[in-house]
Amino acid sequence: MTYCVGLKTDHGLVFMSDTRTNAGVDNVSAFRKMHVWEEPGERVIVLMSSGNLATTQGVISLLDERAKAPAERNPTLLATPSMFQTARLVGDTLREVIANSTPQGMKQDAFAASFILGGQIKGTEPRLFLVYPEGNFIEATDDTPFFQIGETKYGRPILLRAYDRSMSYEETVKLLLVSFDSTVKSNLSVGLPLDLLWYRSNELNVTIRKRIGADDPYYRSISDGWGTALKNAFKSLPDYSG
Amino acid sequence: MTYCVGLKTDHGLVFMSDTRTNAGVDNVSAFRKMHVWEEPGERVIVLMSSGNLATTQGVISLLDERAKAPAERNPTLLATPSMFQTARLVGDTLREVIANSTPQGMKQDAFAASFILGGQIKGTEPRLFLVYPEGNFIEATDDTPFFQIGETKYGRPILLRAYDRSMSYEETVKLLLVSFDSTVKSNLSVGLPLDLLWYRSNELNVTIRKRIGADDPYYRSISDGWGTALKNAFKSLPDYSG
Repeated sequence: MTYCVGLKTDHGLVFMSDTRTNAGVDNVSAFRKMHVWEEPGERVIVLMSSGNLATTQGVISLLDERAKAPAERNPTLLATPSMFQTARLVGDTLREVIANSTPQGMKQDAFAASFILGGQIKGTEPRLFLVYPEGNFIEATDDTPFFQIGETKYGRPILLRAYDRSMSYEETVKLLLVSFDSTVKSNLSVGLPLDLLWYRSNELNVTIRKRIGADDPYYRSISDGWGTALKNAFKSLPDYSG
Repeated sequence: MTYCVGLKTDHGLVFMSDTRTNAGVDNVSAFRKMHVWEEPGERVIVLMSSGNLATTQGVISLLDERAKAPAERNPTLLATPSMFQTARLVGDTLREVIANSTPQGMKQDAFAASFILGGQIKGTEPRLFLVYPEGNFIEATDDTPFFQIGETKYGRPILLRAYDRSMSYEETVKLLLVSFDSTVKSNLSVGLPLDLLWYRSNELNVTIRKRIGADDPYYRSISDGWGTALKNAFKSLPDYSG
């Protein structure tokens, strides 16, 4: 499976994705699920994918190919005038790939995929979108400031409880790692290493991009520390007396 | 949907279930999902259900009817010689109901249901089982000391982290309430009130049986306190510095 989170704070956008792909537990591979298009000073576009691997790779390849040969077809990822138009382009490409890979008369569900799209284009605000298999999409707002795709449930409670729009980049990474660690511990098909990307608003460059492995000392301290912190939190509550 | 947990500790068995049933978010009802058969001094049998409501009610009614007229058919829930045989009886009844409700040529998935079964019969140990829609079942062991059915994911991380087989009844209820609260907060289709049952090993009577409503002061203190405790736990971990 997959787990990706895209999150909007007052300071910018933070993205995290795992790298495990599987077709059954006996067929596990590592694939990058975070893709970045960057034109320094002009635009940063980040796309994270979940779902059928042939579909997501098809979408990424098409977007990439068209971005490299912009004369062939317009608009491309590097020429869309707004993030909204970028989301439309991703949605249209996704719909096209799913339609092309589905044999006639067969249901499209098996080829479904979804994307988290975020970034900023010069002269516009940073924006974050969730693109559905149908090609339509929604945008993050103050009420719903983050999107998850893939195996979303295990890691959701901590996001709901601890997210705060004013949190710093460093706190945001901590929050994401706790959420990912809960997921990794519960579902074998989500696995490290993790890809992390931080885009600070209005920089129009990728601020930080890193890969976090299972042996990363900070990840280890969070993974071990969270177990203890959670047990202490649990102990701090009064026992039942009924 | 539904959320039920059955948990085995050194002191006995603890069961908790929600009461919300829904067919779409605009069609929500309350149904008891925890069913108890008790012959004081002889046996206590607890059954919690998840899945198609017609199926689970059908199974409960059949088991109940046959228990009340034991001459008609043997063995019944009140005459099985062991918990293992009780699990077989529940599994067989479940398979029978699903087969009878499925129109020919239609898939059985829509009518599927699963059960958590636990209890003790005089002269044997307390045991805990998970019964699948296919009618087969597995038993809780030291490695897997609890079962969840229904909307299991949101509430699983805390169970994995904080469960300890030596925990007291009072701590176990606290653990279950934290797990249920995380689920209720994340999925509208799981809702209060909650049914709680505690069976202390070798008592051969239901030790405690209660219903916990949204206005229960202890539930409120856990629900509010857990948010704060979780935020404090989160703050206690070091921020990222990468």
